[in-house]
Amino acid sequence: MIKKIEHIGIAVESISESLKMYETLFQVKCYKQELVASESVKTAFLLVGDTKIELLEATDPNSPIAKFLEKGKQGFHHIAFEVDNIEEEIKRLMTEGFVLIHETPKDGADNKRIAFLHPKSTAGMLIELCQEKSA
Amino acid sequence: MIKKIEHIGIAVESISESLKMYETLFQVKCYKQELVASESVKTAFLLVGDTKIELLEATDPNSPIAKFLEKGKQGFHHIAFEVDNIEEEIKRLMTEGFVLIHETPKDGADNKRIAFLHPKSTAGMLIELCQEKSA
Repeated sequence: MIKKIEHIGIAVESISESLKMYETLFQVKCYKQELVASESVKTAFLLVGDTKIELLEATDPNSPIAKFLEKGKQGFHHIAFEVDNIEEEIKRLMTEGFVLIHETPKDGADNKRIAFLHPKSTAGMLIELCQEKSA
Repeated sequence: MIKKIEHIGIAVESISESLKMYETLFQVKCYKQELVASESVKTAFLLVGDTKIELLEATDPNSPIAKFLEKGKQGFHHIAFEVDNIEEEIKRLMTEGFVLIHETPKDGADNKRIAFLHPKSTAGMLIELCQEKSA
């Protein structure tokens, strides 16, 4: 079951160039930066209300974020929804006809297991499911 | 002051075609549809956790949503943040160097006064400020 929006992913050319603007806009400080080597992405997190804003910077020109930015689309990248059981949610959505990019969960940033839905089955939205790993 | 994400605006070709998919995805029913004549847009709202998802369909080929969709970008359109005093927040952001599309608030959907920031000053993100109108 989808519980809430966990974070909004925003692609930026450079975290060091954009972070101050987002901190000024939201009047909060970045509380964590994290490198996700498997995705060749550097992330920076801000908390607005109880929703995380995740800035995404490519660390490799072949990474998904670099390819996204090549199309000139700095800005919104994805919305992540918190689920209580990611395997069950993947199964439910596949049964409903949604196309999953990841049919089994993979490790993501921020101590999460994640899976993305393909935008072709969600009217163009890139949607992530995520579940906190057990301690 | 920006308090929280109030809603996520998603542009769709057709609410009647996309709404069922979003209802199935989120396992919630649309709780309101509203026509905003001044923007030539039809909206449909779903609640996920405590964040609204606002689907946006153009009702006129010259409307902002129609022009957005012409670029082939069905999907994410904007994020709206709830503020406690929209005039003060516009003033604060202009002082900080942000460019406002609306330097004075205008009426929006869902009983709100709204103002949009220009994406050129927010690293490509279309951001709305909104404040509930007094009863």
